[in-house]
Amino acid sequence: MALSRDEAAALDAADPLASFRARFVLGDEQRIYLDGNSLGRLPVATRDRLRDLVEEWGERLVSGWPDWIDAPARVGDLLAEGVLGARPGEVIVSDSTTVNLYKLCAAALELGAGALVTDTGNFPTDRYVLEGLAAQRGAELRIVDDVERALPGAAVVVLSHVDYRSGELADMERLTAAAREHGARVVWDLSHSAGAVPVELRAAGVELAVGCTYKYLNAGPGAPAYLYVARELQDRLRSPIQGWFGQRDQFAMERAYDPVEGIGRFLAGTPPVIDLAAVEEGVRLTVEAGVGRLREKSVALCELIVALHDAWLVPLGFSLGSPRDPAVRGSHVSIRHPEGWQICQALIRAEVIPDFREPDFIRLGVAPLYTRHVDIWDALDRLRGLVERGEQRRYEAARSRVT
Amino acid sequence: MALSRDEAAALDAADPLASFRARFVLGDEQRIYLDGNSLGRLPVATRDRLRDLVEEWGERLVSGWPDWIDAPARVGDLLAEGVLGARPGEVIVSDSTTVNLYKLCAAALELGAGALVTDTGNFPTDRYVLEGLAAQRGAELRIVDDVERALPGAAVVVLSHVDYRSGELADMERLTAAAREHGARVVWDLSHSAGAVPVELRAAGVELAVGCTYKYLNAGPGAPAYLYVARELQDRLRSPIQGWFGQRDQFAMERAYDPVEGIGRFLAGTPPVIDLAAVEEGVRLTVEAGVGRLREKSVALCELIVALHDAWLVPLGFSLGSPRDPAVRGSHVSIRHPEGWQICQALIRAEVIPDFREPDFIRLGVAPLYTRHVDIWDALDRLRGLVERGEQRRYEAARSRVT
Repeated sequence: MALSRDEAAALDAADPLASFRARFVLGDEQRIYLDGNSLGRLPVATRDRLRDLVEEWGERLVSGWPDWIDAPARVGDLLAEGVLGARPGEVIVSDSTTVNLYKLCAAALELGAGALVTDTGNFPTDRYVLEGLAAQRGAELRIVDDVERALPGAAVVVLSHVDYRSGELADMERLTAAAREHGARVVWDLSHSAGAVPVELRAAGVELAVGCTYKYLNAGPGAPAYLYVARELQDRLRSPIQGWFGQRDQFAMERAYDPVEGIGRFLAGTPPVIDLAAVEEGVRLTVEAGVGRLREKSVALCELIVALHDAWLVPLGFSLGSPRDPAVRGSHVSIRHPEGWQICQALIRAEVIPDFREPDFIRLGVAPLYTRHVDIWDALDRLRGLVERGEQRRYEAARSRVT
Repeated sequence: MALSRDEAAALDAADPLASFRARFVLGDEQRIYLDGNSLGRLPVATRDRLRDLVEEWGERLVSGWPDWIDAPARVGDLLAEGVLGARPGEVIVSDSTTVNLYKLCAAALELGAGALVTDTGNFPTDRYVLEGLAAQRGAELRIVDDVERALPGAAVVVLSHVDYRSGELADMERLTAAAREHGARVVWDLSHSAGAVPVELRAAGVELAVGCTYKYLNAGPGAPAYLYVARELQDRLRSPIQGWFGQRDQFAMERAYDPVEGIGRFLAGTPPVIDLAAVEEGVRLTVEAGVGRLREKSVALCELIVALHDAWLVPLGFSLGSPRDPAVRGSHVSIRHPEGWQICQALIRAEVIPDFREPDFIRLGVAPLYTRHVDIWDALDRLRGLVERGEQRRYEAARSRVT
């Protein structure tokens, strides 16, 4: 039997992370936001920090640089230790996920020739980066359903820790080791996991990873991404995009390129100072809450989605698009319905914000810093009501759009 | 004979751009800021817009994307028409100057093999990008004093429109044509010109260019850069960094990479929405003032620096590090002195902010939107006074540092 709303509210009252919700700008409280897996909410501390940092630019001008210049490494260290299970000096915040993925894949390919491999269902930009790199370097490209069978002869494998549609959580340690047995290196994309799902890069033997900060890390639309390189590998790799922020003794400008030791060599251009402050505040909130507690709450909320789906939505033609076992599921639950796109439109009208991924995935994202049990309960209650009333039929099917 | 301070003040009173100064956050009015060629001031409109945009993120969340997603092209069009002498659809704002330079150089190299060429004195990151690309692609690298002699056999040439040290302004049209005669393409770096020096990309026959927005365009520390590709060339080029924001029908995620027509194919990852707003406000101010009027004022201010240098500083051991002819000079004047580094330190203590470039260049930057004739007069007056008193001797020589 499904939970009552009172029971959901009681779970919220007992939630040790409940106070974090008030640390975000909540806007219209009627609106239920289940798309923090696409774009996280604005932390109150970030709003204040950005205002201060803009003033700091105005006041300090170039004299601010000595304090700003270390932000890519400083925020990287915070991410490394507090969120990614890595060590200080193994992560920097810079550029976009796409650019960082390009940097690491190109650098890894220099260590040894071989095929570039990813799975058919991987996030599009990950596939596009590999397609481009394969064409440039004359490498074989393998975009396959079963990556493990494609490992012999591979050099670089790109995998998402959490699948952006199904929410399936990959076995990072096992797949990294399997690739290494074939002499291949995996670049993990943590965009849909870090901040809501425990990531233990060192423990899992991961050498290379990238990820975005505007989802569970709440750093704002288009905020800079991060990249991780295990310390042992750093000085063997060179970024394909050699820039002045990766140069040893940066302001002695007369010399040939000579990259700094360590992770800093993967910096390229001037770091985005204002955005980095937003990343720092977002990461701080996650670190303060603790990834373990966030995961516990995320699992509870996702289990509630599954339970209500089974009780209320299966009779209406829905099916689960995500794994049923929370041990292999990230922090969103996809539900599928032949009228998925239209249902999404009707849901948005009912002030529930999910998102949609082709062909029929309605993604319900759980951001454990601010999503409550009653949010899940109310969202699925509105959902069953509108489908029972056939409200989705007011909308036409459409194939693609911005979400 | 040098101008009197009253005469300088009279020139400011007659300045048609005088009212623009109040459009910036000025901070401590005792401080004279002559480093807008490194980091521009904060426009009041930008402060307000960023505050609003951060609120918009908080309120609208993913529903903001339909309005945000066009910013790289929209701000690019504003830059194209108002600042760069290009057409709409020829410029986008994205990534850093370094990353954009890499994209364009790699793409141009695909059109035909040959050497990569730049000049010894070019900005470091421009040289580093070419060094890296040459190593990856097995191309010959020519970093030479005289680029024109190195054109036979060249494929891609990178040149700065304004030299970051001397301020020398290159003859864009002539050099572009000279390179084309040898079958080579020039990628122009406009970082030290656009916004203060007229740039007429179409009229000069330029095919490829990049530039930064945090100097004369006042978009803030580490704000995103731009890139230009002449329309005729766009569909023949492919970005080496293939990302989902350059993909046709971006949200139909099942297909192989198929770049959009036009300049959008040079987008890679998710655009930095907050930063793009800062670029838009900065560019708007420049467009409103008009590049022609900005140039006129910039020349007058630079001529004042030269005149005061000749009258006051030559007797103190200074020499001019910039061209004397304003027709071949950008918007900063470098003066040289054997104790240049120590003099810079003493100047900063006297609340005059220049910057320093190895080995002995003191750069005095003129940002015609907010620099006044009296600022120049007072700065050079403080400079001659402190050197006459030997105040620079309190500082030790140093070789490199963050500025």
